[in-house]
Amino acid sequence: MNTAAPLRDLSRLCVHTITTKPWSIETCATKFAAAGVTGITVWRDTLEGRDIQKTGQLIRDQGLSIVSLCRGGFFPALTPVDRRKALDDNRKAIAEAHALGAPMIVLVCGAVPGQSLVASRKQIVDGIASLLDDCKAAGVKLAIEPLHPMYADARSAVNTLGQANDMVEELKSSYVGVAADVYHLWWDPALEQEIARCGRLNALFAYHVCDWRTPTTDLLLDRGLMGEGCINLRQIRSWIEATGFKGFNEVEVFSNRLWATDQDAYLKKIVQAYRDHV
Amino acid sequence: MNTAAPLRDLSRLCVHTITTKPWSIETCATKFAAAGVTGITVWRDTLEGRDIQKTGQLIRDQGLSIVSLCRGGFFPALTPVDRRKALDDNRKAIAEAHALGAPMIVLVCGAVPGQSLVASRKQIVDGIASLLDDCKAAGVKLAIEPLHPMYADARSAVNTLGQANDMVEELKSSYVGVAADVYHLWWDPALEQEIARCGRLNALFAYHVCDWRTPTTDLLLDRGLMGEGCINLRQIRSWIEATGFKGFNEVEVFSNRLWATDQDAYLKKIVQAYRDHV
Repeated sequence: MNTAAPLRDLSRLCVHTITTKPWSIETCATKFAAAGVTGITVWRDTLEGRDIQKTGQLIRDQGLSIVSLCRGGFFPALTPVDRRKALDDNRKAIAEAHALGAPMIVLVCGAVPGQSLVASRKQIVDGIASLLDDCKAAGVKLAIEPLHPMYADARSAVNTLGQANDMVEELKSSYVGVAADVYHLWWDPALEQEIARCGRLNALFAYHVCDWRTPTTDLLLDRGLMGEGCINLRQIRSWIEATGFKGFNEVEVFSNRLWATDQDAYLKKIVQAYRDHV
Repeated sequence: MNTAAPLRDLSRLCVHTITTKPWSIETCATKFAAAGVTGITVWRDTLEGRDIQKTGQLIRDQGLSIVSLCRGGFFPALTPVDRRKALDDNRKAIAEAHALGAPMIVLVCGAVPGQSLVASRKQIVDGIASLLDDCKAAGVKLAIEPLHPMYADARSAVNTLGQANDMVEELKSSYVGVAADVYHLWWDPALEQEIARCGRLNALFAYHVCDWRTPTTDLLLDRGLMGEGCINLRQIRSWIEATGFKGFNEVEVFSNRLWATDQDAYLKKIVQAYRDHV
C-alpha cells in the first residue's frame, strides 16, 4: 500500500478560519502565524463589517498565504428568481475574493430537497458557466467541492469526485477545478483513479483534511481532527501528490466538541496532528 | 422522467419488524395481517426466547409471507478468531432462517474503523464464499445490502450498488444477490444503470423503502416514512420494476421519533404512505 512520507515542515499547512470558529479573522491571522501555520482559508462570515482589502493586507502582513475564500455555490433553486439571487451572491463572493487577494473560491454547489438531483446538477453547471466572465475579470478561480452523499438532500448534488471531474470536463475552463476533501471522499472505491483523472485535467485546485469519527454524532458538526478517526490520510495524500499537486494541505474541521475547548491549546494540537497524521 | 404508477393494493407490502420496534413478533404478526399487510421481514432480536419454527408457523397462520430474516453479515474483523466468530454467527442465522421458513437473509456486511476498506471488502467476499454450502443445504439465500457511505467506518465497506453487483459477479452463485434500499442508494448517479445490471445478473433479491428527512438529526435512527423526505420513490420503483422484479416493497424505517408514537396509528400511516408515495 502506498503511503506518503510524514510532512517535515509546515510550509504547506493551511488552516480554515472555521476550524477555530470562536476566533475573529484578526485573531486567526495572528495566532495562526505565531504557530507556524503558513496558509489560511477565509470563511466569508469572518469578513462581516470589515474592509476586505485591508483585512487581506493584515493577513499578508502576518506572512500568511491566502489560499481560498469559503464559500460560494448553492446554485439550485426552485424558481428563476432564486437562481438569479444565487448568482448575485456568487458575484459578490468573486468581488470579495478579489478584494481579499484570494485566488479561488470553494463552491458548495447546493441541492433542493425534492428537486431531482439531475435537475440540480444541470442548474449547478449552468450557474458556474454564467460566472466565468466574472472569474476571468477578477482573476478568481472556482473549485467545485464534491460533498459526502449524506448532504445530497440540501447541500450538494455533486457527491463524488467523478461527478466533479465530469463537470470540469463539461465546463472546459481553466477557471474551474475541484476541491478534494477527505471527509467527503474517503469511502469512494473510485477515489484513487478519480484523483489521478483530476490531475490529468489540471483541475486539482485544493486538498482539505480532517478525520471521520466512530461514532459520528452529528451529520455536520462532529468532524474529527486528523488522527481521531479512520480516514487513510497518508494513502490519500500519496494519491494527491502523485498528480504533481504542490498546494496546501488545508485543515477544515467543523466540531462543536473542539470549538468548546481552549482554542490556543487546540491550535497546538492541529499542528501536531498535521505532523503525525496528514 | 419515468415514474411508476401508484400501488393499487397491498399484495406486495412487506413491513420489517424493526419498523414497529416496540411490538413483539407476535404483535407484529397479528397487527400487520389485520392491517392488510401481506409480507413480513423478521429481525433476529424479535426471535429471542422463541421456538423459531413455531414462530414461523404462527406468522404463516396469519396469512403473512416471510420475506427475509434481518440480518447477517459483519464479516470483517482484525483477527482470524473474530472472523471465525462472525462466520459462526452467520451459520446460526442461516439455521434460524431455515427454521423460520425465511428464504433469505439480508447482509449488513461490516467494516472495521481503521482497517482499509479494500481489506474489509476482501474479508466480506471470503466470508460469503465460505457460507455457500450452508446456504444450499438450508435453501437460504444471502442478499448483500449496500449501505450508505456514511456507514463506511463501522457498518459496511459495501457502499454502492455497483460494488454489491461486483461482488455478486465475483461470487457466481445463485444463492447470492442484493437487497436494494432507497435510503442507502438514492443519491447515486449510477443508480438506474446499476439496478438494470443487478437485474441482468438475476441478483435483485429485495427492495426496501423509507425516506430521507431534511434535516436528518441522527445518522442511524432518523429515517422518514415514505413521503416525509426527498427520495424519488416512484422513479426508483420504475427502475426496479423494469428489471422484472416481482418481489415485495419492504418498509424498513428506523426512527426514534416514530417509535415514540402510538404504533397502531403509525401502522395505518405506513399503509397510507405506501399507497401515496411508494
